[in-house]
Amino acid sequence: MSVIDLRSDTVTKPTPAMRKAMAEAVVDDDVIDVDPTVAELQEKTARMLGKEAALFMPSGTMTNQIAVRIHCQPGDEFLCEEGCHIYNYEQAGFAQLSGVAARPVRGVEALLELDQVRELIRPENEHLARTRMICLEITHNRGAGRIPSYESVLEICAWARSHGLATHLDGARLWNAAVATGVSLADWSQHFDTVSVCYSKGLGAPVGSALAGSREQMALARRHRKLFGGGMRQAGIIAAGALYAIENHLDRLTEDHATARILAEAVARIPGLKLTPEQVDTNIVIFEVDPQLGTAAELTAALAEAGVRVLAFSQRQVRAVTHLEISPEQAEQAGMALQAAAESLQNRH
Amino acid sequence: MSVIDLRSDTVTKPTPAMRKAMAEAVVDDDVIDVDPTVAELQEKTARMLGKEAALFMPSGTMTNQIAVRIHCQPGDEFLCEEGCHIYNYEQAGFAQLSGVAARPVRGVEALLELDQVRELIRPENEHLARTRMICLEITHNRGAGRIPSYESVLEICAWARSHGLATHLDGARLWNAAVATGVSLADWSQHFDTVSVCYSKGLGAPVGSALAGSREQMALARRHRKLFGGGMRQAGIIAAGALYAIENHLDRLTEDHATARILAEAVARIPGLKLTPEQVDTNIVIFEVDPQLGTAAELTAALAEAGVRVLAFSQRQVRAVTHLEISPEQAEQAGMALQAAAESLQNRH
Amino acid sequence: MSVIDLRSDTVTKPTPAMRKAMAEAVVDDDVIDVDPTVAELQEKTARMLGKEAALFMPSGTMTNQIAVRIHCQPGDEFLCEEGCHIYNYEQAGFAQLSGVAARPVRGVEALLELDQVRELIRPENEHLARTRMICLEITHNRGAGRIPSYESVLEICAWARSHGLATHLDGARLWNAAVATGVSLADWSQHFDTVSVCYSKGLGAPVGSALAGSREQMALARRHRKLFGGGMRQAGIIAAGALYAIENHLDRLTEDHATARILAEAVARIPGLKLTPEQVDTNIVIFEVDPQLGTAAELTAALAEAGVRVLAFSQRQVRAVTHLEISPEQAEQAGMALQAAAESLQNRH
Amino acid sequence: MSVIDLRSDTVTKPTPAMRKAMAEAVVDDDVIDVDPTVAELQEKTARMLGKEAALFMPSGTMTNQIAVRIHCQPGDEFLCEEGCHIYNYEQAGFAQLSGVAARPVRGVEALLELDQVRELIRPENEHLARTRMICLEITHNRGAGRIPSYESVLEICAWARSHGLATHLDGARLWNAAVATGVSLADWSQHFDTVSVCYSKGLGAPVGSALAGSREQMALARRHRKLFGGGMRQAGIIAAGALYAIENHLDRLTEDHATARILAEAVARIPGLKLTPEQVDTNIVIFEVDPQLGTAAELTAALAEAGVRVLAFSQRQVRAVTHLEISPEQAEQAGMALQAAAESLQNRH
Repeated sequence: MSVIDLRSDTVTKPTPAMRKAMAEAVVDDDVIDVDPTVAELQEKTARMLGKEAALFMPSGTMTNQIAVRIHCQPGDEFLCEEGCHIYNYEQAGFAQLSGVAARPVRGVEALLELDQVRELIRPENEHLARTRMICLEITHNRGAGRIPSYESVLEICAWARSHGLATHLDGARLWNAAVATGVSLADWSQHFDTVSVCYSKGLGAPVGSALAGSREQMALARRHRKLFGGGMRQAGIIAAGALYAIENHLDRLTEDHATARILAEAVARIPGLKLTPEQVDTNIVIFEVDPQLGTAAELTAALAEAGVRVLAFSQRQVRAVTHLEISPEQAEQAGMALQAAAESLQNRH
Repeated sequence: MSVIDLRSDTVTKPTPAMRKAMAEAVVDDDVIDVDPTVAELQEKTARMLGKEAALFMPSGTMTNQIAVRIHCQPGDEFLCEEGCHIYNYEQAGFAQLSGVAARPVRGVEALLELDQVRELIRPENEHLARTRMICLEITHNRGAGRIPSYESVLEICAWARSHGLATHLDGARLWNAAVATGVSLADWSQHFDTVSVCYSKGLGAPVGSALAGSREQMALARRHRKLFGGGMRQAGIIAAGALYAIENHLDRLTEDHATARILAEAVARIPGLKLTPEQVDTNIVIFEVDPQLGTAAELTAALAEAGVRVLAFSQRQVRAVTHLEISPEQAEQAGMALQAAAESLQNRH
Repeated sequence: MSVIDLRSDTVTKPTPAMRKAMAEAVVDDDVIDVDPTVAELQEKTARMLGKEAALFMPSGTMTNQIAVRIHCQPGDEFLCEEGCHIYNYEQAGFAQLSGVAARPVRGVEALLELDQVRELIRPENEHLARTRMICLEITHNRGAGRIPSYESVLEICAWARSHGLATHLDGARLWNAAVATGVSLADWSQHFDTVSVCYSKGLGAPVGSALAGSREQMALARRHRKLFGGGMRQAGIIAAGALYAIENHLDRLTEDHATARILAEAVARIPGLKLTPEQVDTNIVIFEVDPQLGTAAELTAALAEAGVRVLAFSQRQVRAVTHLEISPEQAEQAGMALQAAAESLQNRH
Repeated sequence: MSVIDLRSDTVTKPTPAMRKAMAEAVVDDDVIDVDPTVAELQEKTARMLGKEAALFMPSGTMTNQIAVRIHCQPGDEFLCEEGCHIYNYEQAGFAQLSGVAARPVRGVEALLELDQVRELIRPENEHLARTRMICLEITHNRGAGRIPSYESVLEICAWARSHGLATHLDGARLWNAAVATGVSLADWSQHFDTVSVCYSKGLGAPVGSALAGSREQMALARRHRKLFGGGMRQAGIIAAGALYAIENHLDRLTEDHATARILAEAVARIPGLKLTPEQVDTNIVIFEVDPQLGTAAELTAALAEAGVRVLAFSQRQVRAVTHLEISPEQAEQAGMALQAAAESLQNRH
């Protein structure tokens, strides 16, 4: 039985063509000099995002935490949606490594609206942290891959700028948003001072993320990357995989969105499961398990026995993510396995 | 015209008797040795709070931030009500100095309930901060001096303990809660691992706060106090003021609560002002200014001209605090001045 | 038997006149407003040091660590003599609270010379910390109260300035240097960006230190003081003691230097003890105990039995400090007790 | 003209066989699950170093800084030789990210001896940082690849252990020490709690380092690696290069030592150049340029014109490092170029 792994779009393995690209990469010492393949990836990424420069790093956590460090100093505070990655899944690095505080705000279905943050800039006053940045996440992982409306993003970023706040976009899956909306990567990015993107999620590269922004910011980011231990020597090997990914796997993300919809429709039909939110914008499907059926962990376990792997996201929530190794047939298969698992849980009682 | 200063209960000046006590204090070098007056204050405080030991410090900010440091390590997280002092008015010292993150939760009228935090302990997982502490504030400053029900405190602390969370009570104004409820300081404190109290608020001492807890915790706190620069030599001078305060000014806090009610009743009668919350438990009165009247800052300015000083707490909120220098007559006077100020704002239009 | 306490010049108790000044101090809330006595002390201190402004704090550790914070950011480095207070006796607060590294250099008898640091400014390079400050300590505590030559200080500070390094003077005992050399406080201070002084050492005030510098730096220092928990309400009580001290106890430091010389001469005559360094510039006497006699701790214990308290500074070194509670007669007495103690140790064998 | 690049042993490019190994690596998501190639590399490395476990990371800076974090908490201090990598070339990450202080000690030709550190453990005392670790670097980069005597290492580590200090070995080039002395990797490592090694220096892998220690320490290290952003998905691609390197490039390090000696002998013969130290233990040659000849930078520039690249290590010092892309012939060529460059500088005057 071959496993259908829907736990994350990070589980994809490099394709033969991508492996070939990596094997043949022209490389050099990227710490002492510049690795030409890394440089090419950085330039291409910067161009796609409409930024002056980009910097390759080993992970999205590093790109986000270095963005915090570029924009904030100890005692500064940033605004963010309370379910976002930077606040929840990076071990509070902002506080732990950089002395920065987060001010989380509950969005509407994980999407922030201007009215929710408008009053939150603290006045200058020795008792208070300094509000210095706002961070958005597009697509929003805990928000089931939802894409905010372009207008709401524009509005928040314009407000932020006019109030002296820096803006950072955690765009680990911005690729999906661009493909799903037809709004280009650069159009989304132009409203933000810095943007991070991830090559090892839907795009299917084995390793790597990038932070993009101004040349000056990227010089500073390079210094911070060294500090965090992210300086890599002949990194062109893995950069070649990322380069291959953005050149060959970007447009095909529409296929992942289609398979996610297949899966979502299956979920919608299964008694005891409920899509949260109902709308599936990209490649992430999150649903709640009715307590009468059991817990998310129990459903996940039942599915695993049927060869379908998903993630228990909380006591009641399950996440399934589609990616380049999931065909429409497998999405349908996963839907049927889900139905069977739900029924078996139902029948336990 | 003598000013009626309701901005805070920290504005009180030492009385002649308190000054005499300070002038006559027996002192010694509290860094090399132990200052006997400081020691007496610490022992008395510990006893009142039912703890093994207490440690004198120059400010409540220091006691709270050292409590964070005692219970949490870098990368840990604590739960708190989103309006609390430790999260809002201490410059995010938890992040800035100790690498700790806060997880703020909006309470019901600033009071946390167990159901609001029950699901918030993060599992052990390398992506996540470690939930390590919960912090309550009694009385709650931004919550207009409200006192939570004893049962809700007991419930939260029992839950915390059974889940391995440390509990810290920011009891800067715990004195007021004890006097207002008849529940002793020790009864409130027993549910918490550490408690901080402030001598320079309602009690009227010029300087100082204390942190109380186990002997072991206080030894650690002493080390952190040195680090923060809070080690003072012949600190018995100011400790004597605090000692005088707890011996002489504790019971009289009922008077401050009475003057606060006088003020609150006046506010309740003034069109365009609205108590938030309606109930005034202790010595803090917070009310909202109807936008039709003007902003909080405008009302504050109008009042100042009449010799009554209050604090604009936000764009719409005003805070007034009673204390030992405010007589019932002055509270009535302040009420009248408030009415006049509201009317004059009304008539501007 | 009355004890002769030479452990530190911090052990002095306020005199009756100083207590009276504190009891009568005009005070106000120095956090919300400004305490007039604190303000007077700050202005007077700033004037004496030739700086625009000064800020009162509870301890010298706080003034030094806030100076680090004013001049340095995380990842910066400062140069200092390896025996200095800021590097050794402040719990590495620079690293612990501010993410700053120290680069200690062994001076000549604890005094830094330009040639020792000239090559130590690191070039701008992503691998390296940024050399941002140099810190001197006058008089030098571990250096037995030695005063560097005015020319060497001028030379180092001029070099620092021309290389973009900030300069901080830990002048906890600068009072002694000024009195001993006749070079004014302002003359010493003018070469430094910031200067910290301590009122509770030789000057005999119970509590307090100040940091002095530009108005802008002190505004920043006030913010950091709040963060560290050093904001105190009616701090005028203790500021009055400090004010009395600088007005009445400054010139008399010559007496402490005289008693220190009496003690030093006694030490010089005792076989098995050796002044290190031989020269006693101010009120600190440090000497080594010949291993044949025993350890520093053994000598200290023997002395304590005779009612003379000194500090074992290391396994072999002992420190004795004179101050306003030590008369010439007591210094002679201490010398005799020292001789007796040395002899008794000698005779043990 | 083909360039002879002696700036560092990090400049090596993967060989065709190594590229093949990377292209064919079996991989998986090493964040969610375990990448089998990474696991194999980690197990093999642990076994070679005689440790329970090892953890793969993107850089040596990350392995060292995570070792600091495993052994030390904020306010702790570690002892190290003043020229070592962890103190000088990692942006003071120990202070910047972890609140830890360094206590550097000047070794004898960069090698620490027990007598130099024996007195440096600070007593437990609230004024002092806690001495918690000692860090050695073998081979010592700034010490020209010198290897300390096995006995001195054993002696220091035994002393450290008996005094409760953790021991960390920065063994980025421990491979060279093992090959040069015949003392096995595990024999060197057994004296240390944790050891970091680097695959991308003499071994010639493109990217990666590892930290080794107990299973428990590595679990903690994994958590810190996530925090620093060092968690990589299908990292088996680059781990395969490292695996190939330890299997195929370890023994051949003797060749690099031989070419280094060729170079060293050339340097020894050139007037105006002086080996520092004279002895060349492994693959690093450091020499001083006589000021009469010019600066290190001038010599480096002159050499670069002749196609030989070396590093100006300070104003007077030059470093040359041999590696798998440097043949004996090239070492001789470099020697001749060096002689010509020295002569041309001489003749300028």
